[in-house]
Amino acid sequence: MRVFGIDCGTEITGFGVVDSDESGQLNRIVCKTAGAIRLPKTKPLPERLFQVHQALCAEVERWQPDVVAIEEVFYSVNAKSALKLGQVRGVALLVAAQLRLPVAEYAPLSIKSSVVGYGLAKKEQVQFMVARLLGLSELPEPPDAADALAIAICHLHTAQTLALQGGQP
Amino acid sequence: MRVFGIDCGTEITGFGVVDSDESGQLNRIVCKTAGAIRLPKTKPLPERLFQVHQALCAEVERWQPDVVAIEEVFYSVNAKSALKLGQVRGVALLVAAQLRLPVAEYAPLSIKSSVVGYGLAKKEQVQFMVARLLGLSELPEPPDAADALAIAICHLHTAQTLALQGGQP
Repeated sequence: MRVFGIDCGTEITGFGVVDSDESGQLNRIVCKTAGAIRLPKTKPLPERLFQVHQALCAEVERWQPDVVAIEEVFYSVNAKSALKLGQVRGVALLVAAQLRLPVAEYAPLSIKSSVVGYGLAKKEQVQFMVARLLGLSELPEPPDAADALAIAICHLHTAQTLALQGGQP
Repeated sequence: MRVFGIDCGTEITGFGVVDSDESGQLNRIVCKTAGAIRLPKTKPLPERLFQVHQALCAEVERWQPDVVAIEEVFYSVNAKSALKLGQVRGVALLVAAQLRLPVAEYAPLSIKSSVVGYGLAKKEQVQFMVARLLGLSELPEPPDAADALAIAICHLHTAQTLALQGGQP
């Protein structure tokens, strides 16, 4: 299974692609790519959304994942931030729908628990553990790319756990 | 000048197309179309965003406007509503960018003032005045379509006022 993780942000949107191997063991996960799309604040919002749409479409088409995994949004942010983030998130979800891919959503606590084993882990801990789980020699940069990989890993863990229980991911 | 107004909503997104005539007089405005895209709650969010994207692209391509006018979001809504609305708004702004159209944004108070002459006007007053300004025999339905027409009218008024003042819209 190949998962395309997206970490939406108003300035930087991270992405990462992770494969599980055929044996389906929890510790056999391979990173195929990771990166970030930077949305320059100086450009008008429609242009920034256009850029993130184009870049995400290109990456998803290139990597042909089976599923897109994305973070559920944390509602404690204020309304202004939520609106800005929503605009980018809407475009990311649109990309998945346009390429006819299923979308899985995970709460921030589930993602951090899945990778670090602790729901309130800090960004650096997520980066460190993502690198370790994927056997990377360097930390994924920027942290948004690591977050996107963490979301993808969370989906693989959830799918594998459900498969072991005889359910569907 | 032809303006495509969009009133984004999480369940219903209204749209309306308004032309000003060549003489550029304030009271010569013609309605070309108005309608609404309904986003069924039962469908998954990515699918709903896909539908609104397709429908808006089709309408904008059909009517070939010079500009897209959209409401600035009212920040007093809570974060959860702001996120949901942002997702639809992001897709609407993306459509404008993909079709290389400029986007004008207006605050709700400006839109209502422009149409009703009173910033705190109710929805029914907006519907009534939009019908009157455009010389329509019936109220535009649903109210979201009337709101979209109001946004488009607000842009025409603003552009015409700026033109009279010798500035650029």
